[in-house]
Amino acid sequence: MPTGTGKYFSINEGSLLGFPITPYTDSGGINDDALASHVEMLLSYGAEAIFAACGTGEMQCLSIDEHERVVRVTAQATAGRVPVFTAAGFGLDQSLAMIDRAQRSGASGVLAFPPYLSSADDETLYAYYAALAARSSLPVVIYQRDAVRFSPSVLGALSRLANIVGLKDGSGEVDLLQRQIREVEDPRFVYFNGTPTAELFAPAMAKAGVRSYSSALLNVVPEFASAFNAAFKSGDGSLQQRLIDDVVIPFVDLRDRRAGYAVALIKAGVAARGCTVGDVRAPLLTVTDKDHRDLLAWLEELDLADPLKPKAADAPQWVLPARHTASA
Amino acid sequence: MPTGTGKYFSINEGSLLGFPITPYTDSGGINDDALASHVEMLLSYGAEAIFAACGTGEMQCLSIDEHERVVRVTAQATAGRVPVFTAAGFGLDQSLAMIDRAQRSGASGVLAFPPYLSSADDETLYAYYAALAARSSLPVVIYQRDAVRFSPSVLGALSRLANIVGLKDGSGEVDLLQRQIREVEDPRFVYFNGTPTAELFAPAMAKAGVRSYSSALLNVVPEFASAFNAAFKSGDGSLQQRLIDDVVIPFVDLRDRRAGYAVALIKAGVAARGCTVGDVRAPLLTVTDKDHRDLLAWLEELDLADPLKPKAADAPQWVLPARHTASA
Amino acid sequence: MPTGTGKYFSINEGSLLGFPITPYTDSGGINDDALASHVEMLLSYGAEAIFAACGTGEMQCLSIDEHERVVRVTAQATAGRVPVFTAAGFGLDQSLAMIDRAQRSGASGVLAFPPYLSSADDETLYAYYAALAARSSLPVVIYQRDAVRFSPSVLGALSRLANIVGLKDGSGEVDLLQRQIREVEDPRFVYFNGTPTAELFAPAMAKAGVRSYSSALLNVVPEFASAFNAAFKSGDGSLQQRLIDDVVIPFVDLRDRRAGYAVALIKAGVAARGCTVGDVRAPLLTVTDKDHRDLLAWLEELDLADPLKPKAADAPQWVLPARHTASA
Amino acid sequence: MPTGTGKYFSINEGSLLGFPITPYTDSGGINDDALASHVEMLLSYGAEAIFAACGTGEMQCLSIDEHERVVRVTAQATAGRVPVFTAAGFGLDQSLAMIDRAQRSGASGVLAFPPYLSSADDETLYAYYAALAARSSLPVVIYQRDAVRFSPSVLGALSRLANIVGLKDGSGEVDLLQRQIREVEDPRFVYFNGTPTAELFAPAMAKAGVRSYSSALLNVVPEFASAFNAAFKSGDGSLQQRLIDDVVIPFVDLRDRRAGYAVALIKAGVAARGCTVGDVRAPLLTVTDKDHRDLLAWLEELDLADPLKPKAADAPQWVLPARHTASA
Repeated sequence: MPTGTGKYFSINEGSLLGFPITPYTDSGGINDDALASHVEMLLSYGAEAIFAACGTGEMQCLSIDEHERVVRVTAQATAGRVPVFTAAGFGLDQSLAMIDRAQRSGASGVLAFPPYLSSADDETLYAYYAALAARSSLPVVIYQRDAVRFSPSVLGALSRLANIVGLKDGSGEVDLLQRQIREVEDPRFVYFNGTPTAELFAPAMAKAGVRSYSSALLNVVPEFASAFNAAFKSGDGSLQQRLIDDVVIPFVDLRDRRAGYAVALIKAGVAARGCTVGDVRAPLLTVTDKDHRDLLAWLEELDLADPLKPKAADAPQWVLPARHTASA
Repeated sequence: MPTGTGKYFSINEGSLLGFPITPYTDSGGINDDALASHVEMLLSYGAEAIFAACGTGEMQCLSIDEHERVVRVTAQATAGRVPVFTAAGFGLDQSLAMIDRAQRSGASGVLAFPPYLSSADDETLYAYYAALAARSSLPVVIYQRDAVRFSPSVLGALSRLANIVGLKDGSGEVDLLQRQIREVEDPRFVYFNGTPTAELFAPAMAKAGVRSYSSALLNVVPEFASAFNAAFKSGDGSLQQRLIDDVVIPFVDLRDRRAGYAVALIKAGVAARGCTVGDVRAPLLTVTDKDHRDLLAWLEELDLADPLKPKAADAPQWVLPARHTASA
Repeated sequence: MPTGTGKYFSINEGSLLGFPITPYTDSGGINDDALASHVEMLLSYGAEAIFAACGTGEMQCLSIDEHERVVRVTAQATAGRVPVFTAAGFGLDQSLAMIDRAQRSGASGVLAFPPYLSSADDETLYAYYAALAARSSLPVVIYQRDAVRFSPSVLGALSRLANIVGLKDGSGEVDLLQRQIREVEDPRFVYFNGTPTAELFAPAMAKAGVRSYSSALLNVVPEFASAFNAAFKSGDGSLQQRLIDDVVIPFVDLRDRRAGYAVALIKAGVAARGCTVGDVRAPLLTVTDKDHRDLLAWLEELDLADPLKPKAADAPQWVLPARHTASA
Repeated sequence: MPTGTGKYFSINEGSLLGFPITPYTDSGGINDDALASHVEMLLSYGAEAIFAACGTGEMQCLSIDEHERVVRVTAQATAGRVPVFTAAGFGLDQSLAMIDRAQRSGASGVLAFPPYLSSADDETLYAYYAALAARSSLPVVIYQRDAVRFSPSVLGALSRLANIVGLKDGSGEVDLLQRQIREVEDPRFVYFNGTPTAELFAPAMAKAGVRSYSSALLNVVPEFASAFNAAFKSGDGSLQQRLIDDVVIPFVDLRDRRAGYAVALIKAGVAARGCTVGDVRAPLLTVTDKDHRDLLAWLEELDLADPLKPKAADAPQWVLPARHTASA
């Protein structure tokens, strides 16, 4: 059952969380059909929640009307099969407006991004997220990233507010998370691992108490993302490690070539697999020719260069090509 | 002549830049009359430009309609005597909307705040500010602060764009500024020192080429701010240093007690001097009783606790109370 | 078998690594007998290697002659039962001298601390550690902490040098470690988790490939450290988590009260349990009366305030006092 | 009169401080004669104090005996004409030993480098430098750099200790310095600007109260360093700025190509001007061929590629080649 009972919604431990890219039409607008198809594909590969128009979905490049449209299309495509979260961010006023729009667009929850130009002051952070929670009739997950760090006591206090139901962590700081989680009393509070290329962190973060994780790679190589998640859920540590070494780190090396590649490389990968999604919008960087060729080589190395499509019901789990297994 | 000719506007070297707080009515809305009076007071003490609804004016707590209203009231109150800048910030879409509104509200220029959740990528920063400049028919000053640092070559490239006319620096990084300024060819490009409590940095930054400076203290102790600016313009280094030691640093020590005090303490100071401005809005912090008492003591120590009013035409320059001079 | 065969020494996965404090006599010199007894106690509780006169042993406060003496006494007390490592640090010249002394004092390995005032330059780091390894006839473990971060390729290159046999990590950075370990080909290369209060990080770091860990707490509450290590080795995640929540985090909260407490609080804890060890030397901080009382309260809360002594052969494993278990 | 009366020594405001490189013989030992000649050259160009075997002199690559030898040779070559400072650094024990050796080797003062692996704890920093000062019969200047920052109150407390006579600052942080200087009561306390390539910061830092400055460039282009210092002392701001733009920043751009170039590039420059100084020692980086060619081109651009020799008594002040003046 995806939706909440009272304050909480249900999300399984170890969930694979999908963050769809936002496809554009040739004229540069939102491509509703491509978006709906892409969401269907993510679900077929096991996404247990969808986060519409968040970072990977270029939230920073969309107008508020476009943002709402993406949420609406995503919610319709998802049709209640899994929760659909969406971003509330930028300034306080715009975040409140985005919450209002999320509510009327079919979202089941809100992911609250950091306040604009935030300083790391406990009381200010508390007041900011409390204001968002007070406005929302949907469950709110707060997002620890960039300059935002919640002191353990502030996270504890926020967790006791109506509507604040979870923490998404982009910091990867083990000691902080251990201390934060200890201050949260409600066992239903959820933790999402949202570190950059979260599979890289997933085994370690799970031991610090953050088991569900976002997967930007699910957009590009869902076959891998699904196989990794299966290994993650079954506790097959050596397979997880092999996939990290042979799939994730080569991608991360490519991603780190330029500071702005986190989204652009994902979108280029989706396009490389045959989807009409358009390029990222300015000011996001487009991928250079050289890096694009290396991205294609990475896909081919994994035997994952063919067009993306929903997983067939009887499709076997993807495995690393034999040459990798041999070399291990 | 305050307004620009072609791309540039004229601003004197060593200008005192005013950043008014935003007064609220008892019911919590914008207090137009108090704002107009406050702007008049700032001008009477020598503000050579007014930056409406920027950081000190709680831009992060205003709706976009309120923001536009503050700009309009400020522009009317200023009546062309000095340039009126206003903020464009938050996300790209909102920044563009704020530029549109600035143009129709009587502003003479735009201060472009950092992109939301920016990473420090050269190409992305260039594309972002270029997009803002392309939208604006007003001169644009770009603001280096928080995580944003322009590489010298990117600043040089931005300075060559139509409409980008200056840099406001909040970093205080001498070596960076020296290298940035060297890459800007146009001698009309302006540099504003916007470090926190900029008087503290003003003598040093002037030598690095950043002569005009913002003064949040002009809101609270305009008598001091005007006297400091006179010493700054006349090159009286020992008087500047005495004022830094006896006025600025005691305030900075108070400001640094809590991370969120930069705006709240300024507004509390204005209120302490008899203006009806209301408290800062959440999530900004209000000042504790203890810190409020210490703020009053600081004002009294300077003989500056009486109600704020515009400077009389024949008023002599304020001087440090004799007990300070004696102790020096 | 504790000592190495060829380049490598054998260390078990998940080893509990002991970092003894350095006890002083009443007159302030090294207390050989107290040190030997303390090492015996650490071994009885399961220390699988001893690191003599490293950070917890106040290496920064010892003369080089005292340092050698501590190594010699520790090696004699250990008598080959487990490997004895010791620090090489400060400048290049002193590090080389410390390696020479380690070799003649019975040490079985060297822990190479960062170069003095290091900048994070790949080539310089490589050259520095290569110079240390060239001097050493003992296996060398290199220590990633403070400003030192090895790029994955540099760690790979260092791992291929004769005598460099492992990495101790004080960073706790999951992504870095994942990428570093992938560049090391030799499966015998060891990884030590040396994050501050490493039990806090141990479950997560193990999943990133760093299984053995240092335990400063083994000095103070060996009963706990032994029980935690048993849970760690048997994979009892819920017990590890309960011990982290009820023992480790309360200690970490105490430790974080002042920046210099990492060593002082450990030594005060050993003294509180009846050992004559003296205070830490200047410039290390001594513990305030208030914090000392809270340290005692923490020990009493755990029923661990009685005098330290070696574990009896038939002693049962320590368990959390029942009131903790009840509250869980 | 170079040496102190009581606690203080005399140093002029705006002094040019020399930091000689350490020349090696062909067999790799200290080259006494080349060192003495080099010091003579620095003095002829106006060095008002000499800092022997500090950072630029490869203190991190010298044995303690070699270090003492460099101090002795430098003191003899200087022959009391200006104060000779030398470094005390690495660990506490070694710093104390270096102070003892400085005293017997003819040094007139000590530059106290940061403690090894220091955390930024006020009390620990105070205790550390107090211990050094207590050991020294020579005046001590403390060095703020890397992770060390003195809180204003700690700097005030240290300034009241016998023998602590000054602060060398490598941070370039204007606000910190303004607040620190305010806490020092003794007007004889000296401040040295030791930021990387300090001429870049000199005009700004002077306004923050830090007027004397180190000049690594004095080793390589003493003609420039002397001309810059003359402009600095006479207050010719536009000439200082032209020299920063045309000489300093091009060098800084070269220096920033690799993290370890600060010393290597200076030494390579001295060698390029005909001195037999040898290469820097490992682990310091040597300069690549490409960067070496660019260093030569920088020298030639300044008409400063001919062999270094002491300034002739009647030599005119160096000026920027005419092509620079023309382009300005």
